[in-house]
Amino acid sequence: MPIRALVWNEFRHERENETVRSIYPDGIHAVIAAALAETPDFQVSTATQDEPEHGLPQERLDQTDVLLWWGHKAHKEVSDTVVERVAARVHQGMGLIVLHSGHFSKIFKRLMGTPCSLRWREAGERERLWAVNRSHPVVQGVGPSIDLPNAEMYGEPFLVPEPMETVFISWFEGGEVFRSGLTYQRGAGRIFYFRPGHETYPIYHNPDIRRVLNNAVRWAYNPAPAWEDVAAAPNVPVDKAPEKIEQRGPALHRPGEEGFR
Amino acid sequence: MPIRALVWNEFRHERENETVRSIYPDGIHAVIAAALAETPDFQVSTATQDEPEHGLPQERLDQTDVLLWWGHKAHKEVSDTVVERVAARVHQGMGLIVLHSGHFSKIFKRLMGTPCSLRWREAGERERLWAVNRSHPVVQGVGPSIDLPNAEMYGEPFLVPEPMETVFISWFEGGEVFRSGLTYQRGAGRIFYFRPGHETYPIYHNPDIRRVLNNAVRWAYNPAPAWEDVAAAPNVPVDKAPEKIEQRGPALHRPGEEGFR
Amino acid sequence: MPIRALVWNEFRHERENETVRSIYPDGIHAVIAAALAETPDFQVSTATQDEPEHGLPQERLDQTDVLLWWGHKAHKEVSDTVVERVAARVHQGMGLIVLHSGHFSKIFKRLMGTPCSLRWREAGERERLWAVNRSHPVVQGVGPSIDLPNAEMYGEPFLVPEPMETVFISWFEGGEVFRSGLTYQRGAGRIFYFRPGHETYPIYHNPDIRRVLNNAVRWAYNPAPAWEDVAAAPNVPVDKAPEKIEQRGPALHRPGEEGFR
Amino acid sequence: MPIRALVWNEFRHERENETVRSIYPDGIHAVIAAALAETPDFQVSTATQDEPEHGLPQERLDQTDVLLWWGHKAHKEVSDTVVERVAARVHQGMGLIVLHSGHFSKIFKRLMGTPCSLRWREAGERERLWAVNRSHPVVQGVGPSIDLPNAEMYGEPFLVPEPMETVFISWFEGGEVFRSGLTYQRGAGRIFYFRPGHETYPIYHNPDIRRVLNNAVRWAYNPAPAWEDVAAAPNVPVDKAPEKIEQRGPALHRPGEEGFR
Repeated sequence: MPIRALVWNEFRHERENETVRSIYPDGIHAVIAAALAETPDFQVSTATQDEPEHGLPQERLDQTDVLLWWGHKAHKEVSDTVVERVAARVHQGMGLIVLHSGHFSKIFKRLMGTPCSLRWREAGERERLWAVNRSHPVVQGVGPSIDLPNAEMYGEPFLVPEPMETVFISWFEGGEVFRSGLTYQRGAGRIFYFRPGHETYPIYHNPDIRRVLNNAVRWAYNPAPAWEDVAAAPNVPVDKAPEKIEQRGPALHRPGEEGFR
Repeated sequence: MPIRALVWNEFRHERENETVRSIYPDGIHAVIAAALAETPDFQVSTATQDEPEHGLPQERLDQTDVLLWWGHKAHKEVSDTVVERVAARVHQGMGLIVLHSGHFSKIFKRLMGTPCSLRWREAGERERLWAVNRSHPVVQGVGPSIDLPNAEMYGEPFLVPEPMETVFISWFEGGEVFRSGLTYQRGAGRIFYFRPGHETYPIYHNPDIRRVLNNAVRWAYNPAPAWEDVAAAPNVPVDKAPEKIEQRGPALHRPGEEGFR
Repeated sequence: MPIRALVWNEFRHERENETVRSIYPDGIHAVIAAALAETPDFQVSTATQDEPEHGLPQERLDQTDVLLWWGHKAHKEVSDTVVERVAARVHQGMGLIVLHSGHFSKIFKRLMGTPCSLRWREAGERERLWAVNRSHPVVQGVGPSIDLPNAEMYGEPFLVPEPMETVFISWFEGGEVFRSGLTYQRGAGRIFYFRPGHETYPIYHNPDIRRVLNNAVRWAYNPAPAWEDVAAAPNVPVDKAPEKIEQRGPALHRPGEEGFR
Repeated sequence: MPIRALVWNEFRHERENETVRSIYPDGIHAVIAAALAETPDFQVSTATQDEPEHGLPQERLDQTDVLLWWGHKAHKEVSDTVVERVAARVHQGMGLIVLHSGHFSKIFKRLMGTPCSLRWREAGERERLWAVNRSHPVVQGVGPSIDLPNAEMYGEPFLVPEPMETVFISWFEGGEVFRSGLTYQRGAGRIFYFRPGHETYPIYHNPDIRRVLNNAVRWAYNPAPAWEDVAAAPNVPVDKAPEKIEQRGPALHRPGEEGFR
């Protein structure tokens, strides 16, 4: 069974800014999709923000195993309905890889529950991502560190929950550090935040970065069937209790009534 | 310096249901507030949902160290504006204690990023909360377990993120289990979810439950000054970088420009 | 590439106690090995405590991907040398599945750093293991809970570190609860503790338990090459620093000297 | 009630090396103890490795709330008996602060269960510790970062378990990063690892470092009474089960018999 990866991109800078277009003429999504297509059992497609429903109708998400998300200047224009739809699919088991400036996307903030804020500087400085666990699936095929000659700086504090695992920590020439690779589990879904990816540098052309993206898709894939009623809160009636019990005392709900939510 | 605890209650069942009123004639909030008032250095007040702004205007929250939240049938009527206001204060350092059916409150789901769903049964069955760490501050003064003769059942799976600490796990007569005491850190704020509290049983009159509530307020209190700009993402200009660097390569943002969000 | 699973058993009760022998005539290891052999790409073998070096010479461990450990009455007789050898292999990436009374094995205590103590009762009572995350790889093919008609009780508090994930929580007829499935990462190795397995009941003949064991072997398998120098603390000399720096100030170590340990 | 802090030091370099002696003429422990004595409710004492029982007889540890540990060249000479004694006290609730080269101490490796290895360089380079959570109790009174003009470098990967919280991450002039402040809970005891402290630089004279040490002692202090039987695994006989049950099926242990360990 192939893993169905969907690369989502805001796709604005590439159409508006000459520098970005020169690096990503067909959009960041096209370059990432090409990187993923190097893995034979990945089935890769793309979607962009200005398509109807941002290219993410329900049936599309239902057929997606892992979603990659790149957004920046138009976070606010993403529809809340679509955000809830994506969050629900993550809870059901879809993997999600949030890239770079996606830290401030609605979907990432929605799933983290925190501000997801950080410090930043766009100076083309050197970045070095250190692998904290060299044996982590996401790090395979990459050396002890990844060096990027030009990068936007993101600095701590990064306001996210403690992760399940810290996979990468970045060093920046200008003196800051950042937790650049973090894993989370939310419901049945796995989430990987991966920092690199500023649009004015050819980050997604870097072979190590492409390797990490491929690894991350495989890591985030949950082969279990979608947990469709993950958000339901079913009543377990007295006569269906695993152990025999009898109704005692006063009750607010009538038999068979649904719970409040 | 006293710890300023604010007990928030939906306060509907007590006014509408005779059984609930007989247990909590002045409201669940009144009984919890009385429990907290037993601790000399707590300064306790209450607020209810049907007050203007749900009793939670900004200045009130700014003067609150720990907020306790009981809601059930009217979660949906809580204003999103107030939910965001509370979330922001938690990120800045306010403690939050979410009680019982508050698992489905907007504020808890907002901070967890998950469905917060569970299974339930209202049969007045026996519950026993086991302390997983007997030396945890929240458990002090309570024995190895707390026995409740009549309780609503909540059963796993409970769809929340892995907690910082599992403090209590419940056994139910009908055969289920539940993680009944969980701690989280979100931004500068500490969160404690505490399961007991069904409105048709006198749970908040139980001395052990009252002790846990008192302990939890102290545990959730962060004496650090409010982290007011916790959600800001300030630019660190090149000439303010901790290490001397020079601007290199192309940039999207002009000097001094704000970031996107 | 097959996954090489090695089932290790103390193998004393089966030779000394008629009840245990009647359930496991060839030893618990034989039954578990047969369960794992149902998965085509597993290559399964066994070792027992009374073999030379407990059946765990270095070359054997070097060719093991996942080790399963069942011990009880002879924990103290396990050689410290072998324990260190196993711990080193886990740090390098070998998976480890610790079963039932293995909670008090030297290797589990060595890797947890805590007492690993608990409460217990051998009364043949009912146990029900609830899956906390139904989409976890370890839980696939098993329903929302696993019911065991007769089990030894283990009760909280269970003195282990907070796990990476709580996978199962047990309900016991006698009123206790227990975190029965817990995951850990230690170095490059994944560890799964799985509670069921008392020797006087046919636990490892139960299809659900067998499914979990198979799932757990796959989950614990780390395909990355062994991290052989995981315990080394190499010096990075000044002229090999990623960034150009110059030696400054006093130093304790002479150039090229090894660090203390 | 004062908090009883005990500063433990190997105290070899200061007696053997002129550079170290010039910075710490009475030993590193004396300088740290003086730093802690600035807090009125701390009751501070010291112990060194070459005292009988390393200055850590049982009764001394029983009267210690928080132990600070500095060791380096003589880790191997620390008695295993004393290490087990300290570990047992941590499990019972004593706080432990492990400093700098103590990452390779027997007690830290004992409590972590991992190699605790890292990369290092002694070049007097610049270090900057970034606070990941500015509102954490350990960070109070310190700015967003602590700058050290001369430090030994420690680099990732640092082979420790995922922490409860990452409090500090260090940037090094030579290009590496390190998780320099990490919290753990083991049994009833809290552990803080704090990286700075190389003996050839006046690190413990730095006011920010002294502030962190004071904060860490308060954070690590557990006011709960010592959990004396934390390592015991008591049998709960059938007639003492919280729920009424009857003995069923075969049993290995006779009534009242102790468990194996």
